[in-house]
Amino acid sequence: MTLFALDPRLEADTLAIGNWPLCRVLLMNDARYPWLILVPRRVGLVEIIDLGPSERTMLMEEIARASEVLRAWPGVTKINVGALGNIVGQLHVHVIGRSPSDPAWPGPVWGHSPRRPYAAGEAEG
Amino acid sequence: MTLFALDPRLEADTLAIGNWPLCRVLLMNDARYPWLILVPRRVGLVEIIDLGPSERTMLMEEIARASEVLRAWPGVTKINVGALGNIVGQLHVHVIGRSPSDPAWPGPVWGHSPRRPYAAGEAEG
Repeated sequence: MTLFALDPRLEADTLAIGNWPLCRVLLMNDARYPWLILVPRRVGLVEIIDLGPSERTMLMEEIARASEVLRAWPGVTKINVGALGNIVGQLHVHVIGRSPSDPAWPGPVWGHSPRRPYAAGEAEG
Repeated sequence: MTLFALDPRLEADTLAIGNWPLCRVLLMNDARYPWLILVPRRVGLVEIIDLGPSERTMLMEEIARASEVLRAWPGVTKINVGALGNIVGQLHVHVIGRSPSDPAWPGPVWGHSPRRPYAAGEAEG
């Protein structure tokens, strides 16, 4: 039996928030953007279509839940959702709160510039 | 009664493929990438969470359908899915077939470089 394990790069770049019914929920350790990452806790997934229909529905509802959290964040005016995986192969979905005053606006955040980790205590609360 | 109308910028940058149950399906007029865009045919949508749960499930299944089409495309090794909308506000979802030999790899295609339209007849068949 193979157990779910988070990709080491995702683990290094994020802070764990907890588990939702399908996904491990991570906070990207980049203080410039409110940025959640959802990782379905299944072994060997690469694409969204590696999930079956009922799990895809769960994933969509967890994307919606993350979006609602971020839409309530101060300053957020747009939600960006993306599943790329060109660098980290393990299926993961980014849900990011964007603002016209953020560094990458209006472009995508991926590949824009190195992340700026939260200071000690800054990601709490 | 307000009828669904495609954003003029999406219309200018794409070729219409047809309608699926929820979405207008478009082919991005960029010969460098097999790139579909799904636009839910509802008025006034900006975010995925502007759709209700059952329509979100439909959207996910149309994302899956587009992904299956693109995964079968010659040379495609990865699917990228994204809903950004920082420039064009009308809700639309990109589903893109990627390859390590494409111009933007491994970065995102959005904002990378100007599109290269298909030559006459090239997008048919």
